[in-house]
Amino acid sequence: MNEFFPDIQQAIPFEGPESKNPLAFKYYNPQQMVGQQTMQEHLRFSVAYWHTFKASGMDPFGAPTFERPWIKAETPMEQAEYTVGAAFEFARKLGAPFYCFHDRDLAPEGATFAESCQNLEKMVAKAKQLQDETGIKLLWGTANLFGHPRYAHGAATNPDAHVFAYAASQVKHAIAATKELGGVNYVFWGGREGYETLLNTDMKREQEQMARFFHMAVDYAKQIGFEGQFLIEPKPKEPTKHQYDFDAATVLSFLRAYDLFDHFKLNIEANHATLAGHTFEHDLTVASINGKLGSIDANIGDPLLGWDTDQFPTDPAICTLAMLVVLKQEGIAPGGLNFDAKPRRGSFDEIDLFYAHISGMDTFARGLLAAHQIIEDGVLDNFIEERYSSYAEGFGKSIIDGQESFDSIEQFILQQGDPAYKSGRQEMLESILHSYV
Amino acid sequence: MNEFFPDIQQAIPFEGPESKNPLAFKYYNPQQMVGQQTMQEHLRFSVAYWHTFKASGMDPFGAPTFERPWIKAETPMEQAEYTVGAAFEFARKLGAPFYCFHDRDLAPEGATFAESCQNLEKMVAKAKQLQDETGIKLLWGTANLFGHPRYAHGAATNPDAHVFAYAASQVKHAIAATKELGGVNYVFWGGREGYETLLNTDMKREQEQMARFFHMAVDYAKQIGFEGQFLIEPKPKEPTKHQYDFDAATVLSFLRAYDLFDHFKLNIEANHATLAGHTFEHDLTVASINGKLGSIDANIGDPLLGWDTDQFPTDPAICTLAMLVVLKQEGIAPGGLNFDAKPRRGSFDEIDLFYAHISGMDTFARGLLAAHQIIEDGVLDNFIEERYSSYAEGFGKSIIDGQESFDSIEQFILQQGDPAYKSGRQEMLESILHSYV
Amino acid sequence: MNEFFPDIQQAIPFEGPESKNPLAFKYYNPQQMVGQQTMQEHLRFSVAYWHTFKASGMDPFGAPTFERPWIKAETPMEQAEYTVGAAFEFARKLGAPFYCFHDRDLAPEGATFAESCQNLEKMVAKAKQLQDETGIKLLWGTANLFGHPRYAHGAATNPDAHVFAYAASQVKHAIAATKELGGVNYVFWGGREGYETLLNTDMKREQEQMARFFHMAVDYAKQIGFEGQFLIEPKPKEPTKHQYDFDAATVLSFLRAYDLFDHFKLNIEANHATLAGHTFEHDLTVASINGKLGSIDANIGDPLLGWDTDQFPTDPAICTLAMLVVLKQEGIAPGGLNFDAKPRRGSFDEIDLFYAHISGMDTFARGLLAAHQIIEDGVLDNFIEERYSSYAEGFGKSIIDGQESFDSIEQFILQQGDPAYKSGRQEMLESILHSYV
Amino acid sequence: MNEFFPDIQQAIPFEGPESKNPLAFKYYNPQQMVGQQTMQEHLRFSVAYWHTFKASGMDPFGAPTFERPWIKAETPMEQAEYTVGAAFEFARKLGAPFYCFHDRDLAPEGATFAESCQNLEKMVAKAKQLQDETGIKLLWGTANLFGHPRYAHGAATNPDAHVFAYAASQVKHAIAATKELGGVNYVFWGGREGYETLLNTDMKREQEQMARFFHMAVDYAKQIGFEGQFLIEPKPKEPTKHQYDFDAATVLSFLRAYDLFDHFKLNIEANHATLAGHTFEHDLTVASINGKLGSIDANIGDPLLGWDTDQFPTDPAICTLAMLVVLKQEGIAPGGLNFDAKPRRGSFDEIDLFYAHISGMDTFARGLLAAHQIIEDGVLDNFIEERYSSYAEGFGKSIIDGQESFDSIEQFILQQGDPAYKSGRQEMLESILHSYV
Repeated sequence: MNEFFPDIQQAIPFEGPESKNPLAFKYYNPQQMVGQQTMQEHLRFSVAYWHTFKASGMDPFGAPTFERPWIKAETPMEQAEYTVGAAFEFARKLGAPFYCFHDRDLAPEGATFAESCQNLEKMVAKAKQLQDETGIKLLWGTANLFGHPRYAHGAATNPDAHVFAYAASQVKHAIAATKELGGVNYVFWGGREGYETLLNTDMKREQEQMARFFHMAVDYAKQIGFEGQFLIEPKPKEPTKHQYDFDAATVLSFLRAYDLFDHFKLNIEANHATLAGHTFEHDLTVASINGKLGSIDANIGDPLLGWDTDQFPTDPAICTLAMLVVLKQEGIAPGGLNFDAKPRRGSFDEIDLFYAHISGMDTFARGLLAAHQIIEDGVLDNFIEERYSSYAEGFGKSIIDGQESFDSIEQFILQQGDPAYKSGRQEMLESILHSYV
Repeated sequence: MNEFFPDIQQAIPFEGPESKNPLAFKYYNPQQMVGQQTMQEHLRFSVAYWHTFKASGMDPFGAPTFERPWIKAETPMEQAEYTVGAAFEFARKLGAPFYCFHDRDLAPEGATFAESCQNLEKMVAKAKQLQDETGIKLLWGTANLFGHPRYAHGAATNPDAHVFAYAASQVKHAIAATKELGGVNYVFWGGREGYETLLNTDMKREQEQMARFFHMAVDYAKQIGFEGQFLIEPKPKEPTKHQYDFDAATVLSFLRAYDLFDHFKLNIEANHATLAGHTFEHDLTVASINGKLGSIDANIGDPLLGWDTDQFPTDPAICTLAMLVVLKQEGIAPGGLNFDAKPRRGSFDEIDLFYAHISGMDTFARGLLAAHQIIEDGVLDNFIEERYSSYAEGFGKSIIDGQESFDSIEQFILQQGDPAYKSGRQEMLESILHSYV
Repeated sequence: MNEFFPDIQQAIPFEGPESKNPLAFKYYNPQQMVGQQTMQEHLRFSVAYWHTFKASGMDPFGAPTFERPWIKAETPMEQAEYTVGAAFEFARKLGAPFYCFHDRDLAPEGATFAESCQNLEKMVAKAKQLQDETGIKLLWGTANLFGHPRYAHGAATNPDAHVFAYAASQVKHAIAATKELGGVNYVFWGGREGYETLLNTDMKREQEQMARFFHMAVDYAKQIGFEGQFLIEPKPKEPTKHQYDFDAATVLSFLRAYDLFDHFKLNIEANHATLAGHTFEHDLTVASINGKLGSIDANIGDPLLGWDTDQFPTDPAICTLAMLVVLKQEGIAPGGLNFDAKPRRGSFDEIDLFYAHISGMDTFARGLLAAHQIIEDGVLDNFIEERYSSYAEGFGKSIIDGQESFDSIEQFILQQGDPAYKSGRQEMLESILHSYV
Repeated sequence: MNEFFPDIQQAIPFEGPESKNPLAFKYYNPQQMVGQQTMQEHLRFSVAYWHTFKASGMDPFGAPTFERPWIKAETPMEQAEYTVGAAFEFARKLGAPFYCFHDRDLAPEGATFAESCQNLEKMVAKAKQLQDETGIKLLWGTANLFGHPRYAHGAATNPDAHVFAYAASQVKHAIAATKELGGVNYVFWGGREGYETLLNTDMKREQEQMARFFHMAVDYAKQIGFEGQFLIEPKPKEPTKHQYDFDAATVLSFLRAYDLFDHFKLNIEANHATLAGHTFEHDLTVASINGKLGSIDANIGDPLLGWDTDQFPTDPAICTLAMLVVLKQEGIAPGGLNFDAKPRRGSFDEIDLFYAHISGMDTFARGLLAAHQIIEDGVLDNFIEERYSSYAEGFGKSIIDGQESFDSIEQFILQQGDPAYKSGRQEMLESILHSYV
C-alpha cells in the first residue's frame, strides 16, 4: 500500500511541556495514569474522516486548495481505497485510537442506490481489515443526509415522502455498516432537518416525521442486534436557517415529547453550542445533568464569526471546563472526543494535519490534568457544596422535600425577615480555575 | 384626581390609512370585524405598567431622563397612587382594554415583608376601583423577583433557601392580587433564574428548586381557587449571563421533565426570541404547535444590538407573521398582546408614550388584516398542503401511520429510485407575503 | 441561439399594486416619472452574473442543486457562450438595463495565464455583440481574486510577491475588458485581502502592498484612458476572518492614509454593512456624506445568521431608507443597484430567478416612491432642520464658525445655565416613516 | 482617616506561580526585570475610579447591590471625600501605581455649573494631597458627558448648541483638573456621540460639530500648557445604537478627515473592540501600525453577550497577544493598562475587588512574560520575516518601490507562470503560542 505521510516515520512521541517540537506531544502521554484511568482511556480521541481526509479547502468563495495525494486516483472507488489507507496510516502515526465516518465519506455515491450500497459494503470490508491490522477502532458511524441535492429540503423532515424513504434506506445501511465495524455509537446530525422559511413549512408535521424516522431507526437497531449508543447532535443553524435540533435542551424536549427519551443520548459539539448562544460547558452540563451526555465533538469556533469554523481546540481553559463535566459523570465512554475540526484553507500541507491534531490533543490533555487536580483538591466542589448547604438540612431541606407550602413559607419569612447577601465569588473562582490551567 | 395627560382630551380616534396625524389610528379600528371577531377581540392589547409608567429613562450609562408628573409626590405610596391614576387615564385615552403589572410596580417595597404586603393590598384596592370605573381589565399580574439585591443570585434557584422562601412568599401575594383583580393570566419571568458562571453553580439542583417552586405555585392557585392561566416567559440571557428559560423549546423540555406540562403555557416575547437566535414567528410557532402559546409580549428588538431594547413594533411584516400563528390557533385569548416596550431614553415627553403605543397598535392591526386576508385567500395554506401531499395517502401515509419499516422502505427505493426535486419557492412566497402587508 | 427561459415569452409586465401575479411588477414601472427622472433612471438595476447565472446552489454542507440548462455543454468555453446567452435573454425578459461580472464568470480560467486572457477576450467580444443587440449595458466589471487557491492568503496583500503579480496581471485585463464593454464603473472587492490569524501576518506591510496595488490600477486606467469610476466594496469578514475593507469608514481611512482618496468611491452592499454591525442606511450615509457613495449592491442578509446570505430584498422600509440617502445625494449614477443576491439553495428552478428579481425590483420601487414622497412632503427634513436650528444663528453659529473658545463658552454657560431637554421624537418619526411605506 | 479595607493589612504580596492564595500575586512581581524594564514599568496598571469605587451593582433589571462603607455619608461631598480615601487606600494596598477618573466620579454635580466646578476643585486638591502621600499617580482624567440627561442626545454632537456649550465648559475644567493632578493623558469617550435613529439625525453636521469640539480642546490644552497626550476611546455602540467612534479605523478616518491626526492617539478597550467585531489584538494592531496606540483599557467581554460586560481579564493567551503589540511598539507609556472592569453584581464584598484586580494583574503579567519570551526566541517574527521575504529583494522589492507597472508585471507572469502555494501554518503557530502561555 502507498504511504501518504512519508515525513512522519514514527508515531508522534511524547516529549513533555518543555519541548518546543511542534511534532511532539507536550501533555498527551497516552499511558499516563490520571486517577484510575490512563489518559487514553479518559480522552478516547477520534479522527474525523470527513474533515481530515475528505475536506478540500473549498469555501463559499473559493475552490479546493488541498491537493491530497490520496485523491489522485482513476476512479471514485480507487480514490476511496487510497483514502481509507491514508486514514489508518494517519491515525496510527498520530496515535489516535478511534475514527468516525459518514457513509458517503467512506464510499462514493453510486449511479443507483443499490450501487451506493455495494460501494459501502466493499469499503466497510476494507476498513475492517485495516482496523484489524492497526487496532484502531470505530467510535461512531453516521449517514450523510445533507450533502446531496435530494436532501435540500430535509431528509426525515422532507415534504416529499419519497425523500424520507431514501433517507431511511440510507440510514439502514449506515447502521448496518457501523455494526459490522464494531462501532460503539451511531450519530444522527440533521443538517437539513429544519427550515429556510416558515412560509412553506409545517413545523409540527415535520417534527412528527422526524420522530417517526427515529422510532424506525430504534426498531431497526433492535432487529439487527446493534447495541451501540444512538446519539443526536444538536446544531442551531447552518446549513439551514434553523435546525430543529437547535441545542441540547431542544433535543431533550423533542425526545421527551415523542417517547424517544430512553433511546438516545447527545453528541455535543463545542462550535454548535456557541452558535446557539451557549458556552461549550453549558451544553455539556445540560446534557450531563439529564443523563444524556453521550459523546463530544471536540472543536472550537471563532467567537467573532457567525458560522461553523470547526477549528482545533487551542484554549486549555475551555478544555478544563469540558473535562470537569466529563470527569464528574464518570467518563465519556462509550463515547469519545472526536476532532470534528479542520485546518484552515491556507494550511495546504499534509503536515498541517499533524500540527493541528497534536495541538488539539495536547490542549485536551492539559484540560484533563487541570480538571482532575481541581476535583482532587475539591476547590470548586467544596465551595459549591457550602454554597447550597442551606438546602441540606432544616427548613431548606423541608422545602425541597415537598413538605412546605406558600403558607408555611410565608410564616418563615414573617418571622425571619430578609436574608443576608452572600457573594458568589466569581472573580476568586475564575482566578483559582486559571491557576490550575 | 389629577390629570396627567392634559394634551390628550379625547380618546385617540381612528382616522384611516390616509391620515398623517400621529395621534390617530390609521389601521386599528377596535370594533371593525375581522372574520368572526372585532379587532379589539383579536388583539387584546395591554399596556405594560413597568415600562409605560415606571420606566425612568435610566440606562447603564446614564441617569433617569423622564420627569413624569406622577412621580412628583411626597411618599412612595402617594407616588404609587398618582401612578395608578396615570395608568388608567392613559389606557382609557389610548383605548387599550388591558394592563399588566409586577407587584413592585403597583406598590412600593416596604421596610418589612409585612409592610410590602400591606402596600400591595392598598394599591390593589385602588386599582380595582379604577378597573370598575373605566372597564379596563387586568391581562396578567406577576411578581418582580429580579430587581431587589436579595435576588442577585436568583429567586427560586437561589443557593440560599432563605431567598427561595422570600420569593415564594412574594409570589403568594402576587397571585392573590392577580385573583383579586380578576386577572386571567399570571406570568413567571425568571430574570435571575440562571447563572453568571458555572464555576459556582449546581445547575441540576437549581432546576429542581425551580420545579419545586412551580409545583408549590400550582398548589397555591388551586388552594385559593385562582383559575387564570399560568405562563412562563422565556428569555435567553440578560440580566444573567444565561437564564434557564432560554427559549420556548427549553421551557417545554423543563415542563416535561418535571411533570409541569399540564399546568403552564408560554408568554412569548418577540425581543426575547430574537436574543435567543430565533425569529419571533419561530418561537410563537414552537409554542403553538405544542399547544402552549398562551400570551405575547409584543415588542421588537434591534437586530444589531445584543440586549433587550424593548422597542415598539414598527414592522407590519413581522406582525403579519405573528398574527398568522395566532389566527391559526384560533386566537390568543385568554392571553393578549402586551406592549412590553418603552420609548427611547431621549423621547422625554408624555406625548411620546402616545406616539409609541399608537404606532405599535397600528402595526399589529396591519398585521392582523394582512394575516386574515392571507388565510382567507389560502395562498400560503394551499401551497403547504400541496407541498406535503405525498404523506396524505399511499406509501407516505403508510410511513406516517407506522406501517413501514426500514426494510420495506428500502424495497420502495430499490424500485422507485431517486425522488424528483421540487423547488421550495421561497422567493415567490416572500413576494406574496409582502404583497399583502 | 438557444432559448433558456421558454416559460417567459414576454418581458415581465407592470400590472400595479393590486396584481397578485408573481410574474408581474406591482410597483416597478420603468418609465413612470418620480420627480425629474423615470424609475429606470433612478434605480439603474443590474443583474449579477455570478449569482444569477453561475451560482450552483452549493453550500459548505452540500453539493450543487441548480441544473441550469446553460451549463450543459461540452467544453468550458461552450458553457461560457451558453451562459452569456442566458444572461442577456434573462436581463432582456426581466427588463434590467444593466449587468455586472467578474472576469472568471464571463470566461473560464485557462491552463495558462495567456489562455485565460484569450478566453476573456473571446467572451468580451461575444458580450459586446449581445450588448449591441439588446441595449443592455455593463454597470461594472471586476476581477475574481479570491476563488482560485493561489489567492488563499490574499491577492494584493499576499505574502508572496509572485501572487501579487498574478493579481495585478489579472486586474489589468479585467479593467481593459470593462473599458472595451463600455462599463461605467470598475469594482474592487478584496475577498481575501485580510487575514486568518495575526500570528502569521504583518498588517502594516499588507496594507502598504494594497495601497501600491491600487496606485498601479489608477495609473493603468489613466494609461489606457478608462474613465469609469473606481469603487471599493467594503466587507468585514467572510471568507477571511477579517478583511481590511471592514466597512465604509475603514476604507475611507485607508484611502486617506495612502493618498488614494480622490481616485475611489465605494460600492456599499447591504449584507456587508449588517455583517459589520451597521444598518444598510448607516453605511450608505457614511459613504454619502463623505462624497463617496458610488454604487450599491442591493441585497439583504438574515439578521439572525452570521454569514453573507445574499438574499433578495423584500422589506420596503429598508429600501425606503436607502433611497432617501440616494435621492438626497442626487442619484446613484453612474453607479446603480446591482442585485448581488441569489435564490435559496432549494429554489431549484429557473423561474425562481424571475420571482426573486421581480420581488427585489418591486421592493426598491416601493422604497423609491416612499422616499420621494417623504422628501416632497418634507416631513423628516423639516424636523431635522428645526432640530439643529440653534446652530444656524447666534451663539451656536459662532461656535461652528470657530469664533468661540472654551473660555467664552464657559461664560455663556455661567450665564445661561442648563439647557432644556427636547425629545428626539423617535417613535413619532418611525410612525411617520411607516405611514409612507 | 477611615480605613475601608481592614481585612487587607499589608500590601498584596508576590508569592509565585505555585501559590494558591487568592490574595497574593502569582506572576505580577513589580520589580522583576523583563528585558530592559521592570514589570511595573511595562504594565503601568491603573485602577478605574468609576467601576472600582463608584459602581453600585445596579443593572438594567436590578437595584444597587454594593453597600460600600465609603458611600455612607451625610452629604455628596462627604461621600466624595470618603471615596477618594478608599481609592488611595485600595490602590496602595493593591500596589497599583496609577488611577483614572471622570470629573463626576471624583466630585458630585452641584446645583449649578459653578458649584460643580467648585466641588471638582475641592476634590482635586484632596486627590493631589493623597497622590503626594502615597506616590500613586494619575494616568488620565476625563469628563463624564454621557450620564446626565442633558446629554441624552449627545454632547459635542447634540442638536442643541446649548448642550454643546455645556459639554465644552465641563471639558475645560476636566482638562484643567487633569493638568493640576499631573495626569499624563486625557481621554475622550463619546458615550452619547452617535445616534439612536438616523430619522432625526444629520450625521455630517454632527461630525463637524465633534471636530470643532476637538479642535477647541486642542487649543485649550495649548493655552493652559497641558502637555499630556489626548486620547480618543473607540466604542461601537451602547449606550447609543451607534457611536461615531465605532472602532480604531473609524476614529483614524475621522481624525484624518478633520485635520486632527497629529493631536490624538487612541485608548483601545478590549471589550469595545470585541463589540465592534474585532479581536482585542486587532484593534491594538490597527492603532499601533498607524502610530496611534496610546493607552489601553484592560478588560474583557463575554463573547456570547452583546453588551459591555467590563470583566477583569482572565485569559493569559489574550493578554499575550496584547503584550506582543505593546512590546513591539516599545511600550505603552505614557499610557498604561487601566482596569476598566468591575466585579459581577453578585460579588457583593469589598474583598471581591481585590480578588478581581489581583487576577487581572496576574493575567497580564503572564501575558507580558510569554510575549517577551516569544520575541526573545523570535519564533513568530522569524516566521513572518521569511513569509514576506519575496518583497525584500528582486522583483518583489521593485514592485513595492514603485518601479513596476501592470504592463511589466504581466510580462513577469507570462514568463514565470503560476506561483507555488505556501501553507500559512496557522495551526503550528497557534500551538507554539500556547506553548509559551
